[in-house]
Parts: sequence; structure tokens; C-alpha cells
Amino acid sequence: MLRELKEEVLRANLMLVSEGLVRLTWGNVSGIDRDKGLFVIKPSGVAYEDLTIDSLVVLDLEGQVVEGSLRPSSDAPTHRILYREFAEIGGVTHTHSVKATMFSQAGAELPCLGTTHADHFYGTVPVVRELSEKEVVEDYETNTGLAIVECFREQGLDPLKMSACFQMFHAPFTWGKSALDSVKNSIALEVCCEMAMGTWQLNSDGEILPPHILEKHYRRKHGSGAYYGQG
Amino acid sequence: MLRELKEEVLRANLMLVSEGLVRLTWGNVSGIDRDKGLFVIKPSGVAYEDLTIDSLVVLDLEGQVVEGSLRPSSDAPTHRILYREFAEIGGVTHTHSVKATMFSQAGAELPCLGTTHADHFYGTVPVVRELSEKEVVEDYETNTGLAIVECFREQGLDPLKMSACFQMFHAPFTWGKSALDSVKNSIALEVCCEMAMGTWQLNSDGEILPPHILEKHYRRKHGSGAYYGQG
Amino acid sequence: MLRELKEEVLRANLMLVSEGLVRLTWGNVSGIDRDKGLFVIKPSGVAYEDLTIDSLVVLDLEGQVVEGSLRPSSDAPTHRILYREFAEIGGVTHTHSVKATMFSQAGAELPCLGTTHADHFYGTVPVVRELSEKEVVEDYETNTGLAIVECFREQGLDPLKMSACFQMFHAPFTWGKSALDSVKNSIALEVCCEMAMGTWQLNSDGEILPPHILEKHYRRKHGSGAYYGQG
Amino acid sequence: MLRELKEEVLRANLMLVSEGLVRLTWGNVSGIDRDKGLFVIKPSGVAYEDLTIDSLVVLDLEGQVVEGSLRPSSDAPTHRILYREFAEIGGVTHTHSVKATMFSQAGAELPCLGTTHADHFYGTVPVVRELSEKEVVEDYETNTGLAIVECFREQGLDPLKMSACFQMFHAPFTWGKSALDSVKNSIALEVCCEMAMGTWQLNSDGEILPPHILEKHYRRKHGSGAYYGQG
Repeated sequence: MLRELKEEVLRANLMLVSEGLVRLTWGNVSGIDRDKGLFVIKPSGVAYEDLTIDSLVVLDLEGQVVEGSLRPSSDAPTHRILYREFAEIGGVTHTHSVKATMFSQAGAELPCLGTTHADHFYGTVPVVRELSEKEVVEDYETNTGLAIVECFREQGLDPLKMSACFQMFHAPFTWGKSALDSVKNSIALEVCCEMAMGTWQLNSDGEILPPHILEKHYRRKHGSGAYYGQG
Repeated sequence: MLRELKEEVLRANLMLVSEGLVRLTWGNVSGIDRDKGLFVIKPSGVAYEDLTIDSLVVLDLEGQVVEGSLRPSSDAPTHRILYREFAEIGGVTHTHSVKATMFSQAGAELPCLGTTHADHFYGTVPVVRELSEKEVVEDYETNTGLAIVECFREQGLDPLKMSACFQMFHAPFTWGKSALDSVKNSIALEVCCEMAMGTWQLNSDGEILPPHILEKHYRRKHGSGAYYGQG
Repeated sequence: MLRELKEEVLRANLMLVSEGLVRLTWGNVSGIDRDKGLFVIKPSGVAYEDLTIDSLVVLDLEGQVVEGSLRPSSDAPTHRILYREFAEIGGVTHTHSVKATMFSQAGAELPCLGTTHADHFYGTVPVVRELSEKEVVEDYETNTGLAIVECFREQGLDPLKMSACFQMFHAPFTWGKSALDSVKNSIALEVCCEMAMGTWQLNSDGEILPPHILEKHYRRKHGSGAYYGQG
Repeated sequence: MLRELKEEVLRANLMLVSEGLVRLTWGNVSGIDRDKGLFVIKPSGVAYEDLTIDSLVVLDLEGQVVEGSLRPSSDAPTHRILYREFAEIGGVTHTHSVKATMFSQAGAELPCLGTTHADHFYGTVPVVRELSEKEVVEDYETNTGLAIVECFREQGLDPLKMSACFQMFHAPFTWGKSALDSVKNSIALEVCCEMAMGTWQLNSDGEILPPHILEKHYRRKHGSGAYYGQG
């Protein structure tokens, strides 16, 4: 069941390690089959070196486990909400990658300071508000997903053009067209955070990338006029 | 004798290298068999690549070598005091990991700034005072252990919930349910220190994690209501 | 066709990964055969682990693809202009290496603060101005090359002695006698940027390297009196 | 000739790479046979992966090449002066390791801020003055060695207890009882520089390690009362 998707999700989770985005078991990737309405996610607290195709967990969009003998990632309800509300995404990644987590802990947005950012994210990466005590107690992980969706609705952000956010006091979530694509956005986010910190160290009045260059770089890689890659 | 424990202690010491927590021979891990009242520790000044099961040293809680032909880590008396006074811990790790050592040298506590921290440490990681000249001359390593215990008693800290400290001017000590668990806490401490430094660089007024989120994250992973991992 | 050059260009592109200068597909190296007037460049958006001799693309100095079934790097027009205008260079490297990109985003020049810099770059590494909206819309990549050339002409810089620049809001370009030499200059630039940031952190009034030491170090390695290496 | 020494010098040079102290060819290690009055050093500009026992160069203390077909490291005259003037040292290492080079470029001494430092260096690591134009022109590398010796004489430093210095505008030199020991001191210096920068970031009034702890840690590892390691 979902063999190909599981293989991608496994590979995507292992990339978290090889790309230096996680320590211990601090991260998880999922991918969805939209036709079947099922998503595949890492089991909770399992070391990456012990992951196999068969240890992955399959859930439906109501959050019920459909296949798998292990407990799914504790963040599965957050992934579920993102799949339900952001209808066009195919994969979700959550890590505690160091630089992006600094932004989350500081409650700092990431403005677009250069073309590396513009190649991946169309504008400022937002901070999603902290949860109230009630939200935490009642259903922490589901409400985390709802707070992300609320943030995007309020700020009028398109989740396909802005595929990342910083959860206040917590860490980043990213998503993409597929599981692997969501990991690539995690890599890009981590690097852009590091670059921003150094840019501000060199120039505390660092300017935002002019709109015409943002437009150009984003369009080079995304949408119908894209000419980056082998198309 | 203590074959299984030795295998874990060996593996835990080698993790110091693979996880980037040590350079040269600057770190040591031990684990204890509570039934026998014996702990196993790295020999002093031996390169990690030369470590074998048989080079490990077994001591009793009076500090006498019970097995092993090599001299134990010079920090063994500190480990001994921690085992004697913190009755529920099963392993101890000492490193000079870079970021945590910065906190030790600066005499800076590590407040809980986010959920990565809350997943491992319940509150502020304390700084243990420097030793007096008399304490250093008389029995440096034993008195280091006693100063840690004094700090935890005075601040009313539970060593199971706060499994780390910064020894002033020196470096961190961590502990845990087992040797491997104490290394995991060293990893978590190092990363949380790095994250804190960046958080403060982005936002010098960085807030502490609200108590209801600290509570939630710590409880997700620890205690009877934990639901992280495969239980 | 150009077998030897292709092998060097392949090796040079793979060095971007092994030397930590790129993530994802954010970089490209080319090399030129001056006799034939043809240059070899990485294909666009292809992962480094999938690169082969046969996937490289050959272009002439008018920008026409002469060999290769894949689309060339989207930055190929920038490489072309540099080869056309800097007649003595043999290789070009473009990366988004983290530290050098910080300088680009901050619009910060890199003055010569020590001998590591003087061994590779004769003086201050310049910032090339951002492109206007018109330049971006009409022919972004070609105009990027022209802006670099304009900067060197205006500042009277010799591209053989100053083999690097920071493209404002974007990232660095370097070049050299060959493809591999241009990668070495990328490595040197990245390290010198990191060193400068730390130097200024330690000493915000950090002085420039005195001219007699700059002269000595540059001449030890370059030109007719060089005595570094096996000559 | 000097087979064993050459093997150690080769291994020591390769450690520069595996320990992350060098990029490109920016570093060299030598070791001396005091009985024969000969030292073995890396050839100039040769990539570390191409180094073999037979590519090493043997020089006498007058600086004459006694064996080897390659040109010795351009820094050989500096090594020679250190061997001639610091009669008890057995090995010398020169690198452009990133953090220590920041101190050199900033002209910043490294005070002893903690026990990691005290384990290796007895007090403040000094900055050696820049060379005058005359010194650079006449014999740059020899005069670099003489300036180091002058610094140690003027400050009354014992080269066995203080086995490192920062050459102003340039980079660190370290030495030790042997070639490998000099590399270990380079590693320790690099880490202590990094730790100091973070300590000052956390606490700009960071205190120096109290003398009784400095004394204790240095004596634990060095001299007749040492009890660290397997003695």
C-alpha cells in the first residue's frame, strides 16, 4: 500500500539527518496521496537509523491510523490540519533545525534579504502566534496546525508561494509539492535564516530585496515562465 | 563482569565523538549498576579510537577500582559523588562541548526559551559556583561533585527533571536514566545553548517559554502521561 | 570533444559539494578552451550526485549551445560575459556560499584584513551594484555579467589580481586561471569572509593589512617572483 | 633516514585536514630529531591527499635541505628559528585555522577564561607584533620566527608552558614536545578561541580563570605531579 510514497517519505526523513537538519529524533516528514486521502508519516521517537519502509505509519485525514503497528509522530495532527486546509500541498516537514528555531524562539520574521530566499519563498516568512493555555491543554498538536492556517488566512498568504513558517517558541514547519520538496524548503529556510543573521551582523540596516529582483528570482524557478532546471 | 553495561558505556563514549561533543580526549561517560553498586567509566587520557570494552574501568561507590588495569578518568570522583547523591540516575556525561562551555565560562544560566529545551530540561539550567582554593587543593574532583549537589539542594532542583548544569569556569555535566540517556542530554544541552545565543542575537529581550507550554512539552516526553515515542 | 576540460569542470563542480560551498543545486562552475572559444558548464538544476561528463553543456561565446542535450545553467550568460570581457580567465564559479552571500546581501565590501586574504586577493573585494528593473526584465543574467565588468572598469581593478566580487543582494562570483582555480578562489573568499566577521567581532576598529605585507604575500604566490609551491 | 619521524610528521600533517584546521594547502607541520639536528617538514603547496613519506623535506638547523627533491614549505625558516631558539620543543605547527586567525587579524590576545585553556596553555596567549617593511623585504619568514622569539623573551614566557602565539595580521603558530603534540595544541588553541568569542558574547565582562584553578588544571596534565592520562 502506497509503496512509492512510502519510499519517498523514508528517503525524505533520512535527508533530515544527511542535511544536518535534525539531532536525536527531533524532526519528521510526511507525504500525502491526494487520490486516496491518506498520508504517510514517521513513527514517534524512532531513531532515523532504525527507520524502514514498514515502520512508517499511514493515516487518513480524520487522523485515524490506517496502517502501521507503531504510534505515528506526535506532530501528526499538525500535519493532518495542514493537508486538510492547504489543499495543494503534497508533503510536510517539521524540524528543530538550529537557525530556524532561533527565529521561532525570538519571534522574528524572516524578510527577503536576497535571491537565495527569493528562489524559494515569495516574501517574508511569518511567525505563527503561540497557543493559549486552553489550546495547549485541549489539543496541542491540532491547534498548532490551526494556528498556522489562521496566520496564513489573516495575512493573505498563499501556502504554495510561502511554504514555511516559524511556530512561536517552537520551531519551523515547511511544506511543498511533495515530501522531498518540503525537505528542500526546510534546507532553504535554514540557510536563509543563517544568511540573514550574518547580513544583519554586517549591516544592521540591511535592506529588503527590491521587488523586481524578488519577482525575477521567484519566477525563474516557479510557475509557467520558469526556466531554471530541466523543466 | 557487567558486560552489558560496559557495552553501553563504550557506545556512549564513542557517541561523544560521532555527535561532535568532544575534541582530543575532553570528555567521559559512565554508567552504573545500582544493584551491584558499581560504575563503569572511561580510562583517563585514552583516545576514543583506542577504547575497547576491556579498557573501561569499574569502580565502587567508595571510589575504589574494582576491575581494570588503566587509571580511571580523572573526573571519576565527580561521577561518584553524583551517583551517591542523586540516587535515581543511571549515567553521567562530562564534556567540554563548545557552546555549553561558553555558558560555563561566562557564568550564564540557560533559561528555557523554547520547546527544544522544554522537551529535555524542566526550567533554567543552573551554574554551579567555582571552587575555593581550599576545595581545589584538597580534593578538586570530589569537591566539584559536592558543589553540584549543593547547588541542586539550595535551588530545590530535582536531578531527574533538571539533568544538566554548568560548572563555573569549567564545562557542563549532564546525567540521565542511563549512560546513553546522559549523552542524549549532553546533545540537547549543546543545541539549546547554541539556540539561546542566536535567539538573544535576534531579540535581546527574548522571552522565556510560557509555563503552560513548558509543562506540555516536558510532560509529552516524561512521566506517566507521556505520549512521545513508542512507550 | 573537450574531454579533458569536461573532466576538470566535472571535478570542479563536485568540489563545490565536498568543500561545503553549496546546498541543493545552488552553484555552478565552468571552464573555457580559449583556442576553440568554447566553454563547458553545469546543466541547470541537476543534482551534483547525478552529474556526469556527458551531462555537461558546451557553449560558444555568443551563448549558443554547441553540444549537450540538457539546458545549461541559468547563469551561463553571466559566465559568457565574464569570459568575453576578462580575456585571461580560464574558469568561473558561482555559488551561494553562506558567508560570502552575507556580504552580498549586506552590500559590504571585504577589505584585506590579513595574509590569508592577501595570498589570494590583491586588495578589497568589491560589491557589484544591483540591477535596475529594466536590466532585470530585459536580460537578467547577461546584465549581471555586464554589471560586474562595469564595476571592475570603474574601479580600475585587474580581474587576474582580484578574482572575486559580491553581486549585491545575490551572491559571489569568482574566477581564475582554470575551472579548478576559480573554485579555489571561492573557498578562499568564503573563509576570508568568515575570518573578517570574527575579526570585527573581536575588534571593531580592525586595521587593514599594511601594504608591505599585502605585497609580500601576494607576490609569494603570484607572478614571476613567486616562490610558494613547487613552481 | 629519520623514517619514524617522517611517519609522525606525515600523520601530523594529515591531522590538519581531519581535524578541520586547514583548507586548500594552508598549513604545515614539522618535527625535529634533536640528536641529529635535522627537522622534517611538509613540501610547499602540495595537496595533503598527495603527501607521502617521500615527499617530505629534511633540513638542518642552518636551513639547508639535506634530503628531498621538493621545495620545503615557504614557512620552513620560521620553523627553523623556533627550533634553534626554543631548545626543548620537538614539533611546530602553522595553520590558518579560522578562529585563531581571527585573533591574529584583530591583534587580540587570548586570556585564560576556563579550564579547557588551562589544560593546555599556562596564561594568556600572546600576539606577536607585525614585521616592519625592512623585515618583510629582507627575510620575511626568518624574521617572523625572530619576532616570535623576541615576544617570548620580552614577556618572559616559557615556550614549554605557552606553546602558541598569534602572529599579527597573519595566523597562529603552535609547538610542542613532538609534531603530533604541536597539532594537539593547534586544536586546543582553535577551540579555546571559539569558546572565548562565545563567552564574551554572553558576558562582555567575562572574568579570567582564578589562578588557583589555572594552576590546578595545568598541573593535572603537565609536570611531575600530573595525574591525567596513563602516565
